[in-house]
Amino acid sequence: MRLASWRWGGTDHVGLISPDGREATPLACGDASRGVHPLIEALAEGRPLPREAGTRLPVSAISLRAPLPRPHRNLFCVGRNYRAHAAELAGTVFRDSLPKEDEWPIVFTKTPQTVIGPYDTVRLPGRAVTEQIDYESELAIVIGRPGRDIPKGRAMEHVLGYTVVNDVSARDVQTRHQQWDLGKSFDTFCPMGPWIVTADELDGRATRVRGWVNGELRQDGRTEDMIFDIPTLIETCSRGITLLPGDIIATGTPSGVGMGFKPPRWLKAGDVFKVEIDGIGAIENRFQ
Amino acid sequence: MRLASWRWGGTDHVGLISPDGREATPLACGDASRGVHPLIEALAEGRPLPREAGTRLPVSAISLRAPLPRPHRNLFCVGRNYRAHAAELAGTVFRDSLPKEDEWPIVFTKTPQTVIGPYDTVRLPGRAVTEQIDYESELAIVIGRPGRDIPKGRAMEHVLGYTVVNDVSARDVQTRHQQWDLGKSFDTFCPMGPWIVTADELDGRATRVRGWVNGELRQDGRTEDMIFDIPTLIETCSRGITLLPGDIIATGTPSGVGMGFKPPRWLKAGDVFKVEIDGIGAIENRFQ
Repeated sequence: MRLASWRWGGTDHVGLISPDGREATPLACGDASRGVHPLIEALAEGRPLPREAGTRLPVSAISLRAPLPRPHRNLFCVGRNYRAHAAELAGTVFRDSLPKEDEWPIVFTKTPQTVIGPYDTVRLPGRAVTEQIDYESELAIVIGRPGRDIPKGRAMEHVLGYTVVNDVSARDVQTRHQQWDLGKSFDTFCPMGPWIVTADELDGRATRVRGWVNGELRQDGRTEDMIFDIPTLIETCSRGITLLPGDIIATGTPSGVGMGFKPPRWLKAGDVFKVEIDGIGAIENRFQ
Repeated sequence: MRLASWRWGGTDHVGLISPDGREATPLACGDASRGVHPLIEALAEGRPLPREAGTRLPVSAISLRAPLPRPHRNLFCVGRNYRAHAAELAGTVFRDSLPKEDEWPIVFTKTPQTVIGPYDTVRLPGRAVTEQIDYESELAIVIGRPGRDIPKGRAMEHVLGYTVVNDVSARDVQTRHQQWDLGKSFDTFCPMGPWIVTADELDGRATRVRGWVNGELRQDGRTEDMIFDIPTLIETCSRGITLLPGDIIATGTPSGVGMGFKPPRWLKAGDVFKVEIDGIGAIENRFQ
């Protein structure tokens, strides 16, 4: 299934997108302001999805929102989780904190208010705040079933599905505070979408993640290249912390970020960044 | 005013606590599950507080909850923000990342699900997860008026009031992931309360913060000793990030944490930690 959230006729709707990505079927969901969150809760509790409500529409006629436009808490995000990406950072200010295979994942957060729709505009905070805006194409896990201290072997049972995010980052702010949360949490810094593909239709452990700046391919990785795989990330985040339906874990970005170039290539006003993940779809956002 | 959230007669209530801390007056607030959040929103929008609803009760007869039992996003938390605390860490694993006066505050987060009531039990995650549990007595700012890019000179206008938190920390987990969020976010790791005292009755920039382990005074600091003062913290957290009513900024802890002792003195099952802040009150929580 593809679970989506959209705006049409002046109001918010949630529902299903057809396998070819062309048709949207609205479902009878009382409060659509939280996106597909109520659908995730229904599935988590073993309830059926709500009935169809209203006419089916071509996807071209609706405005897709983020499937989870306002997550119930900060998103969990994983740092430097692709081998080739870790290698490209060896020549940057991050060289002293690269993860090692036998150590622990780096996990930080982004506020819920960073989330914007798949084609919305990312608002640059201004040069007084940051001069080093970078992109990070990422596969995001959406948690379906709650759990705490989840062992790797059972982790995939807690995955509802996957979506696409751009973990937009202000590198100067990220580093100067030592902890990364602020430099990752500027308003609008997490484009998400175009929908959630459920885990029965996609294995996030084996797919391709690509990113383009103004049409130029910059990132092209496969999730098999992750240093810490999806079961390990779920085990890690759930140690002593109850994961809840609707939680999001952004799994890290492949190589090719702007910071990895010499000199670095930062995003600027007018740039457009596109992320595509095989089996899900693409998001494309202008920076302004 | 003292804004509080409590349980009585099997249901949740919100309201006011008398200046002597002895009497609770419930207010007519539709949904009390979110604690005083609706009261903060009313004040932020210039609306009056709801009318009194129900009989006044002695505080001894009610069960105080955290004033904001489930914040709308992760709490902002400040690291190493007291001069004497920074000094005590100079001999620990944190020695390479101490803030300097002319640099930037360290800001990380705790999940909303860490929050528990002022006398609730902190649940230890088990020795397989952490063996280094520590306390941090802290003054927490509660944001009243929304704002982005708030200059220091106007920051105090955005403060609704203050409450007391214990920023419970698993030091081994905090350090091994490099980013601190996980080691700060175990379920129940943020006791809060006993209420919010509004900024017209307390100046958080000049008060005393103390912490006791099983009755032994361990922390005794004054907020004037902060490296980055309250206006600076609000300016910092609001750069490019819209602060919202109900946001919480925990301002850092004075010296005397368990990690600062040689050898370190970690909390263990059965210990009780009490935090008291002059002008607000005390919280006291057992670890189990």
